[in-house]
Amino acid sequence: MQHIMARSALRRKGRTVACAAVTSPTDDPALANALRALGCANATELVIGGIPARELAERFGTPLYVFSAEVLDARLRAVQDALGPRLGVLYSIKSNPSLAVTARLRAGGAGAEIASLGELHLAIAAGHAPSALRFAGPGKTDAEIQAALKLGLGCFHVESADEVRAIAAAAQAAGQRAGVAVRINLPQELGGSRMRMSGRTSRFGVDAAEAPQLLREIAASAPLHLRGLHVYAGTQGFDAAAFVRHAKALVLAAEQWERELGISLDELDLGGGFGIATYAGDPEFDLAAAGRGLQELIAEHDRPGRVWLVELGRFLTAPCGVYLTRVVRSKLSGGEAHLALDGGMHQHAAACGIGTVLRRPPLLVHATDLRGSPVAKVTLGGPLCTPADQFAEQLALPPLRSGDLLAVLAAGAYGLTYSPHGFLSHATPAEVMITGGSARIVRERGRAEDGLRGQHL
Amino acid sequence: MQHIMARSALRRKGRTVACAAVTSPTDDPALANALRALGCANATELVIGGIPARELAERFGTPLYVFSAEVLDARLRAVQDALGPRLGVLYSIKSNPSLAVTARLRAGGAGAEIASLGELHLAIAAGHAPSALRFAGPGKTDAEIQAALKLGLGCFHVESADEVRAIAAAAQAAGQRAGVAVRINLPQELGGSRMRMSGRTSRFGVDAAEAPQLLREIAASAPLHLRGLHVYAGTQGFDAAAFVRHAKALVLAAEQWERELGISLDELDLGGGFGIATYAGDPEFDLAAAGRGLQELIAEHDRPGRVWLVELGRFLTAPCGVYLTRVVRSKLSGGEAHLALDGGMHQHAAACGIGTVLRRPPLLVHATDLRGSPVAKVTLGGPLCTPADQFAEQLALPPLRSGDLLAVLAAGAYGLTYSPHGFLSHATPAEVMITGGSARIVRERGRAEDGLRGQHL
Repeated sequence: MQHIMARSALRRKGRTVACAAVTSPTDDPALANALRALGCANATELVIGGIPARELAERFGTPLYVFSAEVLDARLRAVQDALGPRLGVLYSIKSNPSLAVTARLRAGGAGAEIASLGELHLAIAAGHAPSALRFAGPGKTDAEIQAALKLGLGCFHVESADEVRAIAAAAQAAGQRAGVAVRINLPQELGGSRMRMSGRTSRFGVDAAEAPQLLREIAASAPLHLRGLHVYAGTQGFDAAAFVRHAKALVLAAEQWERELGISLDELDLGGGFGIATYAGDPEFDLAAAGRGLQELIAEHDRPGRVWLVELGRFLTAPCGVYLTRVVRSKLSGGEAHLALDGGMHQHAAACGIGTVLRRPPLLVHATDLRGSPVAKVTLGGPLCTPADQFAEQLALPPLRSGDLLAVLAAGAYGLTYSPHGFLSHATPAEVMITGGSARIVRERGRAEDGLRGQHL
Repeated sequence: MQHIMARSALRRKGRTVACAAVTSPTDDPALANALRALGCANATELVIGGIPARELAERFGTPLYVFSAEVLDARLRAVQDALGPRLGVLYSIKSNPSLAVTARLRAGGAGAEIASLGELHLAIAAGHAPSALRFAGPGKTDAEIQAALKLGLGCFHVESADEVRAIAAAAQAAGQRAGVAVRINLPQELGGSRMRMSGRTSRFGVDAAEAPQLLREIAASAPLHLRGLHVYAGTQGFDAAAFVRHAKALVLAAEQWERELGISLDELDLGGGFGIATYAGDPEFDLAAAGRGLQELIAEHDRPGRVWLVELGRFLTAPCGVYLTRVVRSKLSGGEAHLALDGGMHQHAAACGIGTVLRRPPLLVHATDLRGSPVAKVTLGGPLCTPADQFAEQLALPPLRSGDLLAVLAAGAYGLTYSPHGFLSHATPAEVMITGGSARIVRERGRAEDGLRGQHL
């Protein structure tokens, strides 16, 4: 019945697709929050940093990533305010390796945590002192360790005894002293986290039971400087109390090992992974509760010389970003409306559910008709020749036709960087940052010929 | 018990990880077939195109993709022989947009099917005449259509009436005639296919019920030249008989529409999607049966002027490729052995199960100890800070230690191109082709600084 209605509505309206009224996706609190973060709580069209999305798409083309510097600033300030002055914030560059985003967060007072030599170069280009950076990851090669030492890296977050020895050997050979903090795999699991990395056998971190011996070895190693401990138990965690409990477990372990081993563990990196709504129906992380809990924890356990840190990526960057894509073609198949967009999983894989188990629609809106009645059920896919390139199936949206503009919200994290952007050899999208009502390109749009770069017959 | 054995074996052997004997992964027929394709059916170490993998890793570094030109040639010849002289083979560049691979297949007599302007540029650089190329994909933009016409593209595979009109308008404006073949969404589903794209409501193809009207419209359109029909019903199909049945359905539809509409549908592209074993336990596609069935179909339905085509990507390119990665660090956690490799999901996402529902190990071998007793159970992950970056969990392999070389087989398709290679900003791997026992770089290794390219503060 609905199919028949859709079809007849399509005939009436030309290429516009419409069918029976359904529940509005803008009723979703996650979507409403994402719009509010952009200052569009009551807007009828999407405006980013004071500029309508429509104008940005016309000026810079689509597909397009847009970042609002002011929303990014506000987010960092909100985190700093909630966590208090004793807790330093490191930006996890992996969430969005944009030079402009990284530099903006640095200007706002965030440090940075890197996970590759590429991110080290980017952090330096964004104005970070290498000595203030922390280098994470379970598979740093000897060559990467040597290069990082040469660039003056401040601290390695180590994940195994094997790695500790490699860093000691590299530092010794270079005549340098390398800072190391040990990532601990605590026996406690972090509750409420979408992807857990501790509390069980893991490639990440050193089992707590093995830590004392390794800490002793580091403390006794001339080319190493034991900086402290690190923990990172999971990503997309929505349980603030569980995060605080896990942080407390690290603090207690640190105090015990300082006492028992007669060592100093000045720096405690409590990790991050604060959740951010990415899909329809996602909950919200209680930043205020996390801040209160962590401030209490610090008040109870502070001491001179202690450095307290958290590391956040997605929680800082997601809200400031929007992915804009246009409807290229529309059609009916089997009575259902399908739209082909110019953007897709090659540029925003997460929005197509790549890496998730249960696919849910991303926070997707009709950019020029935010309050329109969601009378059309449409399946939205990208230009790739695979059914996996699909944002949503039979999602209710205001009527859409070829040329109309769609926006994926909360797209400032794990967007382009998490996507197979060479897949099917489309040009990479441009990235634009808006500051003080003015837009500038911070990543140039790729060209169709880019796939040939570095290739030989 | 096994955990305790693993731990004590580790102590005995230094960094070598070993535990109780378990089933060998080389017992897997899919893995044995992949080794046979490389000429390593009985070898004790992996040799590619006459050169030991060990030597290639030393000379070119890791992670590394290696393609054997001879294995690629043999694969194309086997397909051509099985399908017979009336059936042309198009290479689906999306499976591996390597210039060298594309050129090699062209030299062997394959045409090409493209899915973006980037692939069009690559096909031309590989020596294809643009007029002989087919351009697929549901979301070709007006700008892409215009650019393709300007470059002299031969034929668009169209997916909707909307697209037909856009191509007609672009051709008219350019004063050109555009070749179009209509992709049909047949009511029959293709059986035995891992990812289906027909027989139901779909973004792909024009519903068979809607086709006659659209074919009439194209035939009557002055700027369009109706070339024929196209069908592509699914990828990783392992049922040869189902493929032949689906091809026959297209042929019958074509004959019916030629009769009823008084049009010519000279070109029939029967699609592809022949399955190739990628994970342990995968079956084998019966190429001989498909060839017999298609040759019979053609014998029954051939006529002068008819052009018969299949389009294959993975089936041609997968067997010739190997992804080489080294063990960087090893450790025990919770009594289980974990290895961190220098390669991972950012460079071979499919081997980490990205895009699959049920994760199974890829076709992975200890490159310098193919026949070693699989006494070690290890969890193998890459250098990224995510549990998703994992090739296999507790896989039985011969003993492995830091520096040892692992190889993912059947890696010539959907390897680097399907991977988020910017994720965590590691340098992209080099690609090497081996021809006549001699290895050359066909894609240069990236540099750590590449992530900064095109970025501005």
